[in-house]
Amino acid sequence: MSAVDFTEFVSRLATLSGQAILPFFRARHTTEDKSGGGVFDPVTEGDRAGEDVMRNLIKRTFPAHGILGEEFGAENADADYVWVLDPIDGTRAFISGIPVWGTLIGLTRKGVPVYGMMNQPFTGERFSGDGRMARYEGPNGPRELHTRQLTNLAEATLMTTSPHLFVDGQKAAYDRVESAVRMARYGCDCYAYCMLAAGHVDLVIESGLKPYDIVALIPIIEGAGGIVTSWDGGSAAQGGTILAAGNKALHQAALALLNG
Amino acid sequence: MSAVDFTEFVSRLATLSGQAILPFFRARHTTEDKSGGGVFDPVTEGDRAGEDVMRNLIKRTFPAHGILGEEFGAENADADYVWVLDPIDGTRAFISGIPVWGTLIGLTRKGVPVYGMMNQPFTGERFSGDGRMARYEGPNGPRELHTRQLTNLAEATLMTTSPHLFVDGQKAAYDRVESAVRMARYGCDCYAYCMLAAGHVDLVIESGLKPYDIVALIPIIEGAGGIVTSWDGGSAAQGGTILAAGNKALHQAALALLNG
Repeated sequence: MSAVDFTEFVSRLATLSGQAILPFFRARHTTEDKSGGGVFDPVTEGDRAGEDVMRNLIKRTFPAHGILGEEFGAENADADYVWVLDPIDGTRAFISGIPVWGTLIGLTRKGVPVYGMMNQPFTGERFSGDGRMARYEGPNGPRELHTRQLTNLAEATLMTTSPHLFVDGQKAAYDRVESAVRMARYGCDCYAYCMLAAGHVDLVIESGLKPYDIVALIPIIEGAGGIVTSWDGGSAAQGGTILAAGNKALHQAALALLNG
Repeated sequence: MSAVDFTEFVSRLATLSGQAILPFFRARHTTEDKSGGGVFDPVTEGDRAGEDVMRNLIKRTFPAHGILGEEFGAENADADYVWVLDPIDGTRAFISGIPVWGTLIGLTRKGVPVYGMMNQPFTGERFSGDGRMARYEGPNGPRELHTRQLTNLAEATLMTTSPHLFVDGQKAAYDRVESAVRMARYGCDCYAYCMLAAGHVDLVIESGLKPYDIVALIPIIEGAGGIVTSWDGGSAAQGGTILAAGNKALHQAALALLNG
């Protein structure tokens, strides 16, 4: 499989899923509207439409590959190559009209994330990586992504989706890091990890993630020079608690506080 | 002055300020970079560049008008018409690379906001209004803005820039509303009010705003059918505590909780 150009294939997945999802973004039908007795939920509809077109193209192109998707579950999950899909990561942003949600398209080989893309079809931005390098395409043209080499926690910018998502002792652990940094920002899901890869923020800390929330982002973060692990320093590929940092020194400093 | 087409003029201000500010967005020079002995702060530089081009065009076109700007203060502030400018509202979003900041361009007549625009040059979105109607221009073409007519707090979506920005009793008052709604989202500054005008969120609650943080947004919110006041129900034009709602019933319900 090493000769397969996954870059081009993933771009096709991104284009198709973007076309499927975008009509549901800012649709004026909202969850409280009812028609024909059912409830129209634009996130669910967009999620399904996006995952459906990706699954179809993957199955036609790589019938031996497995698929793990947020909406339609696992299929052939023991295959060497498994696609890990989240059509709309950041559902609350999506519902609120805020363009910081994204479509996550990840590929694992024997369980290890080897390629990933975050596609934001409204802004026309794509963040991709293969663990060795990472790339941005957007309104200002393509460029390589590189994390920031800031190593002092006291100068760092931290992001998390919401401080309310931490449970039990997680909140105290997170708060130790938030108290140590210069600035904390909330509310960006996958977009936060991409801003880390692009060198605009230094840390992302979250908990309760599913594999499809993070697998696609790992090769982007690592390709840009960053580090992403669970809070115990192990692989991030299974989701759960996640700590991403722009560099090893900052990762270690934050990890010490999380476990302090 | 009633024959003056402020719509076209404000669009020119938006285009020029966008061109001046955008080069500083996601600039890889960050606040910790030092060159020539000084500290390069992309927000401050972008703020100044954006406000400078707007002030120059206003002074050339309407020499009798006053100007109140975030960076360069007040000039001729007793004039009938006063322009109220915030070149980069949402500085923390700007620093973090997140495109939910905006340029606020407001116009007051005898102290009353009569026209406003929020320009987001990265996404190419403009939200404008004159108190009677409100308008969107963006990637999907122009349309009118209308707030959502959801009146039940328990189904509402609430936004605020950060729950940490409330002081003293404000936090308890805010928390009473947050506890009553279906979903709260953090982190969007001016973009939150525009999403309210567009009917995607139902409430925005903030405190500590300056006039230039809110004046431009008032004619947009009201033009879209929304209500925006201070927490005591008075004019929002002086800043301070702000409650914006998609409709009168929801505004009254939230106001009662804030003051409960």
